[in-house]
Amino acid sequence: MKIKQAINLTAISAAVLALSFSTGCRPETAGSVSVGDAASKVYVAPGQHDEFYNIVSGGFNGQMSVVGLPSGRVLKILPVFSAHPENGYGYTEESKPMLNTAHGFVPWDDLHHIAISTTNGEHDARWAFGNANNTPRIARVDLTSFETVEILEIPNSAGNHSSPFITENTEYVVASTRFSVPVGTDEENDVPIETYKENFKGTVSFIKVGDKGDMSIAFQLVTPGVNFDLARAGKGKSHGWFFFSTYNTEQAHTLLEVNASQRDKDFIMAVNWKKAEEYIKAGKGKTVKAKYAHNKLDHDTHMATSTIMEEVLQLDPKELKDIIYFIPCPKSPHGTDVDPSGEYIVGSGKLAALIPVFSFTKLMEAIDNQDFEGEYDGFPIVRYESALHGVVEKPGLGPLHTEFDGRGNAYTSMFVSSEVVKWSIETLEVLDRQPTFYSVGHLSIPGGPTAKPHGKYLVAYNKITKDRYLPTGPELAHSAQLFDISGDKMQLLLDFPTIGEPHYAEAFPAHLIKDKQVKIYKIEDNKHPYVTKGPGEAKVVRDGNKVHVYMTSIRSHFGPDNIEGVKVGDEVYFHVTNLEQDWDIPHGFAIKGANTAELLIMPGATQTLKWTPDRPGIFPFYCTDFCSALHQEMQGYLRVSPANSTVALKYSVGDTEED
Amino acid sequence: MKIKQAINLTAISAAVLALSFSTGCRPETAGSVSVGDAASKVYVAPGQHDEFYNIVSGGFNGQMSVVGLPSGRVLKILPVFSAHPENGYGYTEESKPMLNTAHGFVPWDDLHHIAISTTNGEHDARWAFGNANNTPRIARVDLTSFETVEILEIPNSAGNHSSPFITENTEYVVASTRFSVPVGTDEENDVPIETYKENFKGTVSFIKVGDKGDMSIAFQLVTPGVNFDLARAGKGKSHGWFFFSTYNTEQAHTLLEVNASQRDKDFIMAVNWKKAEEYIKAGKGKTVKAKYAHNKLDHDTHMATSTIMEEVLQLDPKELKDIIYFIPCPKSPHGTDVDPSGEYIVGSGKLAALIPVFSFTKLMEAIDNQDFEGEYDGFPIVRYESALHGVVEKPGLGPLHTEFDGRGNAYTSMFVSSEVVKWSIETLEVLDRQPTFYSVGHLSIPGGPTAKPHGKYLVAYNKITKDRYLPTGPELAHSAQLFDISGDKMQLLLDFPTIGEPHYAEAFPAHLIKDKQVKIYKIEDNKHPYVTKGPGEAKVVRDGNKVHVYMTSIRSHFGPDNIEGVKVGDEVYFHVTNLEQDWDIPHGFAIKGANTAELLIMPGATQTLKWTPDRPGIFPFYCTDFCSALHQEMQGYLRVSPANSTVALKYSVGDTEED
Repeated sequence: MKIKQAINLTAISAAVLALSFSTGCRPETAGSVSVGDAASKVYVAPGQHDEFYNIVSGGFNGQMSVVGLPSGRVLKILPVFSAHPENGYGYTEESKPMLNTAHGFVPWDDLHHIAISTTNGEHDARWAFGNANNTPRIARVDLTSFETVEILEIPNSAGNHSSPFITENTEYVVASTRFSVPVGTDEENDVPIETYKENFKGTVSFIKVGDKGDMSIAFQLVTPGVNFDLARAGKGKSHGWFFFSTYNTEQAHTLLEVNASQRDKDFIMAVNWKKAEEYIKAGKGKTVKAKYAHNKLDHDTHMATSTIMEEVLQLDPKELKDIIYFIPCPKSPHGTDVDPSGEYIVGSGKLAALIPVFSFTKLMEAIDNQDFEGEYDGFPIVRYESALHGVVEKPGLGPLHTEFDGRGNAYTSMFVSSEVVKWSIETLEVLDRQPTFYSVGHLSIPGGPTAKPHGKYLVAYNKITKDRYLPTGPELAHSAQLFDISGDKMQLLLDFPTIGEPHYAEAFPAHLIKDKQVKIYKIEDNKHPYVTKGPGEAKVVRDGNKVHVYMTSIRSHFGPDNIEGVKVGDEVYFHVTNLEQDWDIPHGFAIKGANTAELLIMPGATQTLKWTPDRPGIFPFYCTDFCSALHQEMQGYLRVSPANSTVALKYSVGDTEED
Repeated sequence: MKIKQAINLTAISAAVLALSFSTGCRPETAGSVSVGDAASKVYVAPGQHDEFYNIVSGGFNGQMSVVGLPSGRVLKILPVFSAHPENGYGYTEESKPMLNTAHGFVPWDDLHHIAISTTNGEHDARWAFGNANNTPRIARVDLTSFETVEILEIPNSAGNHSSPFITENTEYVVASTRFSVPVGTDEENDVPIETYKENFKGTVSFIKVGDKGDMSIAFQLVTPGVNFDLARAGKGKSHGWFFFSTYNTEQAHTLLEVNASQRDKDFIMAVNWKKAEEYIKAGKGKTVKAKYAHNKLDHDTHMATSTIMEEVLQLDPKELKDIIYFIPCPKSPHGTDVDPSGEYIVGSGKLAALIPVFSFTKLMEAIDNQDFEGEYDGFPIVRYESALHGVVEKPGLGPLHTEFDGRGNAYTSMFVSSEVVKWSIETLEVLDRQPTFYSVGHLSIPGGPTAKPHGKYLVAYNKITKDRYLPTGPELAHSAQLFDISGDKMQLLLDFPTIGEPHYAEAFPAHLIKDKQVKIYKIEDNKHPYVTKGPGEAKVVRDGNKVHVYMTSIRSHFGPDNIEGVKVGDEVYFHVTNLEQDWDIPHGFAIKGANTAELLIMPGATQTLKWTPDRPGIFPFYCTDFCSALHQEMQGYLRVSPANSTVALKYSVGDTEED
């Protein structure tokens, strides 16, 4: 059976296409900057360091990239939600639990937004948070080791896009659903899609962040069944409030490109989370069953554990009044960005040709005065004009996202008209505009979303690349562009390609963390249950059909390096400890046959590769990371015999024992 | 049982450590170049293109990177041997067979060397070949689409390191084993490791490359059980010969860092492959059983297929004389590099303090005169002095690899003394030396290994990074350094980080391929069996427990976008066709639940995600690549009902049909 639609999609698609893609024929203008000037501004001489860390989401690769600014160099690809054959993340026994969910192992996701931790609204750069869209999760990366140390699954959510955004002191990370869905048990959720308005709900989860970064879902708000897009916390005078952009307030479930673009205005949803906290303290929350995984990397063993949680605390904001207010915002808003003072909230309707700027002071007055223009699904709608500070007129077409320079200026990306527009927060006057190549999504200014921006550079993350680099077939890297924004006019300095889709990024001054980096793990602190702390302790132990290889690696030797007596069907665990205690001397480990990934073992750490041999033979193993002049000699052999073989367990350590 | 060793490993390790790591205290000298000069030399202004493509191996990530020179920008990560969640390589039904082997699916490997195809010894840049070390394979990348289009497994090999190197007209790609192993059936290979000298053999495979690039193993030479490291084909006057570096000619199987460093000289193995061809033509080959996979991407369907081959043709060079000669070379040689003329063969003993340069003319004379100094495992050893052109004295410590500038100069990387040394091929005089930060492995000069180098730049791929960039925890990007070699003295221009381990790379002028790039796949040429060529053809078809979704994607809609009647346990195939016919408008596809990776579908192509739902509910799907102003609206819902449900198959296409 095929449901027929009376809408002429072809015509609509053509119109949207024309609207959404006006690139390619734009004249090449790099601002007024001279080439030599730009070259010297982005050049970081050999041996010198970049000025800013730029933590960039990888979009559909599920990772983060660490980029140096102003050079645009990719300093690291940091695995978060996707298995990473490069260093064994998601393949080692230690890291596998990190990618567990309530429905099993999930080794891929789509990471869109970065939130760098803040204190008093300013970057403290202790942690970087990232969201998984597809299987809703929030990850926390420790910025002293650049490792993913925690992943928390979000129940009752689907398309965790409006995440992670944080409050002024990193009290909370929020995660809201993009796709409203039924939020009952699996069986209850089997409903006709056409019952959307009746059965589909949104949720917003407030995740408490502890002093050491540990996350837990404090409470979850159940909302009308809209799509949540982006969010920002209040700060300064608006601390205690959170602002979420919504679209599809039409509650369509098919042909959204048409049916979710019907209303002239959708909403910014303002949430009084301090009030919600009061209700929680007063015992107004309701515990509901909900299965979700909570995964952590243990500090001492460096092993991940996964715990399946069973329930979540929900608040019903419809019953508990004065938590949620809707502010009308044209038109399918994407960004909702709060200026450094906390007074101004910038809405960016992606199909709009103006930018509304709301005043927190006026919003509070309107709420106090009950200056409402109606209700949406039972919640008060604040009168648009009453909350409005003013409108930026003719900024361009398709505003998406706004960052700030700390000097009273805002910078908004214009997807449809492919440009960055600078305007004054106070006067709402457009001050400058520069084209981007091509369609620009999010922007990043170091400290740009915080109370203390460092308004020196702006990076535009563009969605269409085409001819910006040497071509590489049909699939091209996405493109970023670096602008100098220290003067009155923006100056385009550099095009640089990125990894995955650079959806959003934050940047902060390098001095915040560069001297706090972990360089090695102390071997004496290694509490891994299968650590081998010296060549003399290397051994091979059989335990039924499990074989544990306690292996050491140090330039240029594995101990043991000859192993016999392993049989087809045995579960072989290679627990490899890197004995080096020197920065940047990792060792790798790979063995022919066990070919899902390698181990890449940092100094002082232990990593484990599990392999169940399926055939007899001689299987060489070797170090995969060029570690020394004798790296090529850093190898060994494993002999695997048939299951019924009588070959005894035997190994050669090559240690200092006497004959 | 533990085999005891009488060797004091601790003392040896300390000595090797001291030898292999003399970095960190070197003074910072960037040559005589001024910062402004270097900045302008590496700066590629927005809208401008790099001058050279640099195809860089990713080492332990199993991929290649495409880097632009002189900017050092990473233009693409190109998946070859490792599954790549970013674009679904290794996860889609179309690409999975590409990673098949005779022993099943192998989604990771360690890619070390790049060979760009040549004609008459010069880069034609039709294809890039890469090797998989751990599960021996050779891949071919089409440089008009930057896609991996063929992977051939190599039987009777382990640690396929001495690969892929090509002959002057890309007649052959060679692949030789690093780890000698028993080369019989699985059962025959179950032998004690201590029988190495008796049972372990090396192999060198000559892979024929057809006019369209198709690979097939022409023949395999069985050699003494040594380790092969690197290789180069002759060219010009030495066309018809191939030169392989060997180490562990001691045939040790344990403690190789000691036991394989005993001999003062190992060998360069010279192979007369024209003679081998004659023997093959004369029917002297012997067909042996050998299982290996041969995988190809079909041009019309864009689907990979995998064929398991059953036999391989072997030549026994010991029986068939005058194929193999050994040339003594100090000490554990790594590189064996042939100069642009084909006359000089440079041996690089990684523990040596000199560089021997052999003369092809003298080698031929020595062979003609039977000027031998003995035999190695039955093969003649050419007298060292007779083949020697001369020696570069005191070049530094630990020569690894040499490239050429086409102006009579050679550049050798010195791992142990961390420098690049320039010397004259004719006079063997050292002309210049520049430090590298830090331990340098391979080098790349555009065209450097060919008959026509473009001696403008040299890139040093360094193995220890430490403090070169802003620190990123214990795990750091590997570092490359770009030198200007157009003048008498090398000038360090730029440090740039790389992806994975940049083991080796080749570079060539961009004009060779930049105008030949595939930008889209023509939808009318799409012969995928489940292609959907327009929204009107979109449908959902049940075939037993298989459900085929014929889906279209075009800005900003999936057709169908609502699907019901799928049941728990069904095998659901989402065959998504991207209808766009515009460059750089991919669409992505992900669905909650089917979370192994996404699809990333290039314009005109069809890609398939398979999912077997394990629970009922509503599962949203969406486009993962920001494609248009209404990208966030490009979504749909799948309803999954219990296995015993009576919900009928039903879908909404949203097409132009009338009610």
